Amino acid sequence: MSVTAAKGFTAAGIAAGIKENGNPDLALVVNHGPRRAAAGVFTSNRVKAAPVLWSEQVLKSGELAAVVLNSGGANACTGPKGFQDTHATAEKVAEALGCGAGEVAVCSTGLIGVLLPMDKVLAGVETAAAQLSEHGGEKAAIAIKTTDTVHKTSVVTKDGWTVGGMAKGAGMLAPGLATMLVVLTTDADVDSGTLDKALRAATRVTFDRVDSDGCMSTNDTVLLLASGASGVTPGHDDFADAVRQVCDDLGQQLIRDAEGASKDIKIEVVGAATEADAVEVGRSIARNNLLKCAIHGEDPNWGRVLSAIGTTSAAFEPDRLNVAINGVWVCKNGAVGEDRDKVDMRYREVHIVADLAAGSETATIWTNDLTADYVHENSAYSS
Amino acid sequence: MSVTAAKGFTAAGIAAGIKENGNPDLALVVNHGPRRAAAGVFTSNRVKAAPVLWSEQVLKSGELAAVVLNSGGANACTGPKGFQDTHATAEKVAEALGCGAGEVAVCSTGLIGVLLPMDKVLAGVETAAAQLSEHGGEKAAIAIKTTDTVHKTSVVTKDGWTVGGMAKGAGMLAPGLATMLVVLTTDADVDSGTLDKALRAATRVTFDRVDSDGCMSTNDTVLLLASGASGVTPGHDDFADAVRQVCDDLGQQLIRDAEGASKDIKIEVVGAATEADAVEVGRSIARNNLLKCAIHGEDPNWGRVLSAIGTTSAAFEPDRLNVAINGVWVCKNGAVGEDRDKVDMRYREVHIVADLAAGSETATIWTNDLTADYVHENSAYSS
Repeated sequence: MSVTAAKGFTAAGIAAGIKENGNPDLALVVNHGPRRAAAGVFTSNRVKAAPVLWSEQVLKSGELAAVVLNSGGANACTGPKGFQDTHATAEKVAEALGCGAGEVAVCSTGLIGVLLPMDKVLAGVETAAAQLSEHGGEKAAIAIKTTDTVHKTSVVTKDGWTVGGMAKGAGMLAPGLATMLVVLTTDADVDSGTLDKALRAATRVTFDRVDSDGCMSTNDTVLLLASGASGVTPGHDDFADAVRQVCDDLGQQLIRDAEGASKDIKIEVVGAATEADAVEVGRSIARNNLLKCAIHGEDPNWGRVLSAIGTTSAAFEPDRLNVAINGVWVCKNGAVGEDRDKVDMRYREVHIVADLAAGSETATIWTNDLTADYVHENSAYSS
Repeated sequence: MSVTAAKGFTAAGIAAGIKENGNPDLALVVNHGPRRAAAGVFTSNRVKAAPVLWSEQVLKSGELAAVVLNSGGANACTGPKGFQDTHATAEKVAEALGCGAGEVAVCSTGLIGVLLPMDKVLAGVETAAAQLSEHGGEKAAIAIKTTDTVHKTSVVTKDGWTVGGMAKGAGMLAPGLATMLVVLTTDADVDSGTLDKALRAATRVTFDRVDSDGCMSTNDTVLLLASGASGVTPGHDDFADAVRQVCDDLGQQLIRDAEGASKDIKIEVVGAATEADAVEVGRSIARNNLLKCAIHGEDPNWGRVLSAIGTTSAAFEPDRLNVAINGVWVCKNGAVGEDRDKVDMRYREVHIVADLAAGSETATIWTNDLTADYVHENSAYSS
């Protein structure tokens, strides 16, 4: 159901010919109101793609009528011409829908440093606008895939109102955010301030804590649009919970589909003096290539966890660190703990607990193992 | 020639049985004076192996009579017993040589979190002491190998004095420093203050700028010992140059032997506002797994260079960045530059120039590509 699960939205996904293989590559999501409230969060990479620069600007009004998304090209590092192309795409959508270009967000994903084939993009917008449907959410989710093997959607329905969404992303997944495009919609009757607050709170503990390969994208975008079509205004906490639930589900789907991965690794940092310490330690472990290789080989190599913790500025004493892998405390007080042979690593999910013994704060970061398939996928094809 | 190229030093390398495969695994380097000046730099990882904690202490006197090194076990994260084992090893060397244990540095490399087989280590020290020779440098260099495919030595001879050394390291190579043990010797007649200054100046621009896989070790140690046996006291600059030259050569040998690598990547950051900016940007590029995969696939994917630069706090404007790969300026002013098809990537060395257009400072960081062989080597074996 994706972005059309909530009332007041239509969507479409089509093959515009941007991708050479003819797969679907252009999606359109339209908010029919009565509200057009919106919020967004964007990559913290300082090299931002043209569509990110554009969408950040249009979001300042707190309103969006539509989002147009393309795969097959990131339109990043494309100079003034790239920005003109994004603008022209928004104008084309505005013309087709009868709204202003300043109410249209644009998202792109694909190879950096290549201009989009604008004749195909603009013709594709017309085709998509003609196919908009209340059942178009699934097709839209399919059209934004790049190296994703599956499309990702999620829906939470509450008492008379719904939050739904779609996501794409498989590589270049890292905090603050991933190569990841996410569009969430809701028919709750809430203003853009509420959307913004709920979205930032949700991404901080979901997408921002997914770190597949440590590589931050130029194009990451998460948008949340509210139509108000349900006529229900939920309580702030209920609404924030629903948004977080959808973000968490989509984030998990991203990790499970990460390029070449054979293991999903949940890194739970406990006993931290601050939440920031817990996040820093979790990220450092998540980015340690040697550990990621060891997990791929089903080797509970806790020494690599300790060496990763040791590179951080978090509060801890080396001789008080404890590490459990899949429930076995293989490291106690910074030294050898239970027998590493007791660790069962046959299953896809691997759970690492790193106890800093320095306080009571925690954070959970998700990552994947590093595999020959990841290397192959990212060396054999430009992406 | 290695550590015995300089006059006043003997060395040995033997198989003590620490490694299960019977390969050489214990080395001893002895300074016969007349001077026993010494300096050292150690890993900045906060989780430090027992031999690092020991050697940092004994170095405080500015004097060393000997260095004992073992492969086959890192003696890291081994608690109080691990530290006792390091102490006992130094005592054994002191007994064999007739010096104090506080004049003996200890270095270990291998798997973290496993105690050393001390009966074999102590017997090995006796055997090594009995085999000390002015020609033992080569054997010592061989005995400290872990996953290294070749042993690494370097010698610079100047007017009447010499600096020589040996190094090991192939994985867990990252700044500040690598899983890397280095022992340098000189017969120049210089004090420990001069050694310390020359060594820190050299490592800062050589070993500290080698970043093979972003993983910082618990055991990194670089030692420089002076015997004064040449009777020559070189000028500070001449001496510092020679030390840097040997460090640079050994650092290059580490990169060329990095685990699984098929490309050596020289990342030259130019036009930086500060040297610190240049180093930060160089490291960020060196640690980008997606770029390292692309280089493996001989794909001049400059978008991944820009996305790595964008994650740093260095001074730059995205639309003024320029990137050359093997002499072709594929990115100009943050956008598409010369045709990427012009880039010839058939050779082992790949040269990336990242121009921040923000000043005149530069730094060069060396790294490798990321390959399926790296994944295999680090997932199939505990190390």
